[in-house]
Amino acid sequence: MQRPATKFNKEKLLINKAKLDEILKQRNMVIQSYEIYGGIAGLYDMGPLGCALKQNILQFWRKHFTTYENFFEVEGPILTPKCVLAASGHTAKFSDYMVKDLKNGCCYRADHLLKTFYENKMEDPATSAEQKATYDAEMKLVDNLTPEELSAAIQRNGIKAPDTGNDLSEPLAFNLMFATDIGPAGDLKAFLRPETAQGIFTMFKRNLEFNGGKVPFGVTQIGNVFRNEIAPRNGLLRVREFTLAEIEYFVLPDKKTHSNFSDVENLSVQLYPRELQLEDKEAEYITLGKAVNDGIINSQLLAYFMGRTFKFLIELGIPAEHIRFRQHLKTEMAHYAKDCWDAEIRLSYGWVECVGHADRGDFDLSNHARCSKVDQSVFIAYDEPKEVKDVTLSFNKGVMGKKYKKDSQKLFAYASGLDEAAKEAVAKEVEETGMWKVTVDGINFEIEKANITIKIGTKKVYGDNIIPNVIEPSFGVGRVLTAVLEHSFWVREDNEAKSVLSIPASIAPVKVGLFPLLTKLEFNNKIAEIEKICKNGFLSFKSNTTAVAIGKKYAQADEAGIPFDVTVDYTSLSDNTVTLRDRDTTKQIRIPIDKLVETVHALTQLHPTTTFEKLMTIYPVEEVKEN
Amino acid sequence: MQRPATKFNKEKLLINKAKLDEILKQRNMVIQSYEIYGGIAGLYDMGPLGCALKQNILQFWRKHFTTYENFFEVEGPILTPKCVLAASGHTAKFSDYMVKDLKNGCCYRADHLLKTFYENKMEDPATSAEQKATYDAEMKLVDNLTPEELSAAIQRNGIKAPDTGNDLSEPLAFNLMFATDIGPAGDLKAFLRPETAQGIFTMFKRNLEFNGGKVPFGVTQIGNVFRNEIAPRNGLLRVREFTLAEIEYFVLPDKKTHSNFSDVENLSVQLYPRELQLEDKEAEYITLGKAVNDGIINSQLLAYFMGRTFKFLIELGIPAEHIRFRQHLKTEMAHYAKDCWDAEIRLSYGWVECVGHADRGDFDLSNHARCSKVDQSVFIAYDEPKEVKDVTLSFNKGVMGKKYKKDSQKLFAYASGLDEAAKEAVAKEVEETGMWKVTVDGINFEIEKANITIKIGTKKVYGDNIIPNVIEPSFGVGRVLTAVLEHSFWVREDNEAKSVLSIPASIAPVKVGLFPLLTKLEFNNKIAEIEKICKNGFLSFKSNTTAVAIGKKYAQADEAGIPFDVTVDYTSLSDNTVTLRDRDTTKQIRIPIDKLVETVHALTQLHPTTTFEKLMTIYPVEEVKEN
Repeated sequence: MQRPATKFNKEKLLINKAKLDEILKQRNMVIQSYEIYGGIAGLYDMGPLGCALKQNILQFWRKHFTTYENFFEVEGPILTPKCVLAASGHTAKFSDYMVKDLKNGCCYRADHLLKTFYENKMEDPATSAEQKATYDAEMKLVDNLTPEELSAAIQRNGIKAPDTGNDLSEPLAFNLMFATDIGPAGDLKAFLRPETAQGIFTMFKRNLEFNGGKVPFGVTQIGNVFRNEIAPRNGLLRVREFTLAEIEYFVLPDKKTHSNFSDVENLSVQLYPRELQLEDKEAEYITLGKAVNDGIINSQLLAYFMGRTFKFLIELGIPAEHIRFRQHLKTEMAHYAKDCWDAEIRLSYGWVECVGHADRGDFDLSNHARCSKVDQSVFIAYDEPKEVKDVTLSFNKGVMGKKYKKDSQKLFAYASGLDEAAKEAVAKEVEETGMWKVTVDGINFEIEKANITIKIGTKKVYGDNIIPNVIEPSFGVGRVLTAVLEHSFWVREDNEAKSVLSIPASIAPVKVGLFPLLTKLEFNNKIAEIEKICKNGFLSFKSNTTAVAIGKKYAQADEAGIPFDVTVDYTSLSDNTVTLRDRDTTKQIRIPIDKLVETVHALTQLHPTTTFEKLMTIYPVEEVKEN
Repeated sequence: MQRPATKFNKEKLLINKAKLDEILKQRNMVIQSYEIYGGIAGLYDMGPLGCALKQNILQFWRKHFTTYENFFEVEGPILTPKCVLAASGHTAKFSDYMVKDLKNGCCYRADHLLKTFYENKMEDPATSAEQKATYDAEMKLVDNLTPEELSAAIQRNGIKAPDTGNDLSEPLAFNLMFATDIGPAGDLKAFLRPETAQGIFTMFKRNLEFNGGKVPFGVTQIGNVFRNEIAPRNGLLRVREFTLAEIEYFVLPDKKTHSNFSDVENLSVQLYPRELQLEDKEAEYITLGKAVNDGIINSQLLAYFMGRTFKFLIELGIPAEHIRFRQHLKTEMAHYAKDCWDAEIRLSYGWVECVGHADRGDFDLSNHARCSKVDQSVFIAYDEPKEVKDVTLSFNKGVMGKKYKKDSQKLFAYASGLDEAAKEAVAKEVEETGMWKVTVDGINFEIEKANITIKIGTKKVYGDNIIPNVIEPSFGVGRVLTAVLEHSFWVREDNEAKSVLSIPASIAPVKVGLFPLLTKLEFNNKIAEIEKICKNGFLSFKSNTTAVAIGKKYAQADEAGIPFDVTVDYTSLSDNTVTLRDRDTTKQIRIPIDKLVETVHALTQLHPTTTFEKLMTIYPVEEVKEN
């Protein structure tokens, strides 16, 4: 009755995906939205079990990251004005390339069409080994093609619209953000946020102040984001609205270490750096400490977060061998990223990116500083003030005004913006030539020595203004949830019809099933009594008092991922005990009803304080054979 | 040092609102969004303290409603296709009336302009008592005016654009939903949901099945909703994006009772039914049981939820005398509502609707059934099958086809859709006149007796298909949060500069402050040790190791609503104890560090298991005088 090891090949988890999908639908966990209206691609409803599982994962995430790391959780709006997303580069660069059926206007993602073409060719027995190698090599490059290269590849391979065979348009950049207008006049253009990060960046100064003006500190945000996918697919993996749980950790560029690195440095994880990918080798196990020492991961801080993510995924029941960290190729990195490692999980779809770990450098804060004209730097004081050279340039404003009229203001502004080195160069030029010649905004200025006063002195500087860097772990919650479901799914060896979702008890959507052994008034009354006790103890339960046989009830509960089942039987009526069944082993113990709530809480809270195995040494074990 | 009773007049809570707003901003709790870009009206950021408070309120809500009531929590998307919101009536009716400045195009809400006009007139000493009475009467009607009446009132009172004095346009209906397009072709019109309820209704059949095909059951959803307010105002009270926590309880129309009504029937609450409002009287205390018996609240079920809401608000620290349930006037009810009671809370703004309790009847499910053509009824079996008359009409299709061609199909479809009574009437007509004359879709049919066969028999009917009714408690989370903040805010009598947010410990954003008595390396090391212990115990803390005096640190923590403060002092270094200070009383006890985490958890968990008062009998009380 033990759960067998999960089967997999190099790329894919080998599970009966059709059966799992059927369960998700039948048990009302994950359903396409607006089903009664025919459904909308890329939008999903979470039914009671799906929603509770997701909420439990999020509560665990909050404990694991926000509370444990003492980060600040914040919440900003989904509606984001255009100025913010222009600063972040999203209005210009957050696009996919689509091609249109030239006759009916249907849209396809250019890269998806190419990949499907290559995949089909490689599976086709008519394709020669040599051709296969070519297709394989071309397929690996699809993600990095320019629109011109995409177009050439589509032409070269003679690809047509898959639904009609019609010709296709040239690839067009399609921005993935959903647009809307704020206010009754409709003059404030806005988008639905494509990531929660920008909300954190625009709040940066407030949180810096909240942290006493000091970095490092971490800020988290959990919320929905929106991407108007051209072709949503693969269940919860590529959707139009999904939940991200993001961390933005603000740190000085030269301080990317973490005081608790020792907590993770000995973790051995599968690492898949660029070089191994380009050489077509496989990921290799290495400890995070060694990966930092060897310069594979570019900072201890990035490695720290990768370690924390690894621990998080392990606690969700994902086995270590199904997790790897893949470094982005230089060509595939997002426009804001300096380095990026994806935590990929082996799913039935292949390796799937579930958590990104990006070093965003100072890209976002610098751009917001520039666009909002609000300083985003942190003042870092020197241990001792420094004495530095101080050059000031001043002008005979009367003469300049007469000579250059309004344009003289441009000169003054330009001169006051020069740094020390540039001002020294001016001083040298005036000294040597008796004149400073400079072109500002296309206007040529010639300033005689008599009209410029140069003072060279010293001044005290107390510190630097530094724009922090950002390390960003970003969790796709729907993908993590999919990983939990796929990795908890198995079928009992003694009965192929009996599927089980061995979701860890701590995040299981419902904690206990309540069943009468038979349909009998006294049993049902006892169930009602236990329901009341569960409610008062805030323990989630699902009762089943239908006429279905008890074995079937257990099987249904197993499919729903309910970790423990209570059964009321004849003994219950005489001594107020019930049996408690463990989903994964189907073993049962008998416990007093008045111990039930605290026991199940102890078994199922976010960090369980007991195990069923331990309880089997405390309470009598019932010999039950399920068929 | 005790907290004084909150002052209020009939309408308003009398607090120093300006001071509270300053604290919310200074402590980074609630800030206008995109502040560095000048801010966007009607959008707010929750900083770390605001966000944690909100999350704790939501977790408490989940326990109080979803878990305790054994409801199903679900999650649907924000993106909602137009067909859903057309069915629900939102595309047609979810509008406010705006008027435009005829010169610059600025938009105003017509009702707001009128109300402000009346308010100003009533505060104006130049207004006579008689005029005041007229204005007062007119103001009370503003919410119920038709666009023509709004226009007349604006004309009559000579109201101009407040910013310019320009003339105003006629009132225009402005739909409050944000529009967007789904998909690359832009042909699927969608809106951001204005309520979470529609997501629950469109999932109804799935959840009905999940509940074994039986009603009643409750479904909850927590999530953001969007309303493109013409004129956002009053902080979190009228915003463009906000969180709703909604319950849709599906129940048979004739079964609006609740088996646990006894839990709330003796609660005495302030009730403000329509009649008292129209007679200009005040709300009256009455028990929910009596209100149901006297027919003031139209169902026991609605009263049950009002009682549960009342208990929820009390646990959040809102005193009973500041809560009243106001029944909507018939003219102000939403287009879907049969009856509606708002839980209003007395705030500095006056009485503010925070929770709606609406009986939506079968409005939504019926409309979705009609528009989606998917049956939304529940089959309710009779105890015994019923024998009923069964009339069947059949036609000589050959003759009919010759006579009416294609139109004959319309006749057949019409006839098969007739109910039993109508078919009996046909039978009677044919019997008496030898002919059935009927007009279908404008076509006149005349069917001779020879061409129609009427069979009158009996059939067994096993039950009815009934579309359930819906009772909806709907919580405006930002409003509830505002109420918690206003009602927890007070100023110490011995020092006006010392403000306190006495947020109940169970929902307080941060549970404990960690402070060294003085800036001293040994003290800071001990703080670091305690931080580690808190992290491992998942206890949220905020340290302050700056050089600020300890009294000031306490004051800052009080303003942040932190319920308990730990101070490391000289004694700590020798015996590993710290002082633990109670925010509300400023009393202190001394406890061992190794008891800290479990003690503070016990004091601050959602249902605390101890009180500071109790701890004062267990641990030594420290005599500390704060100045």
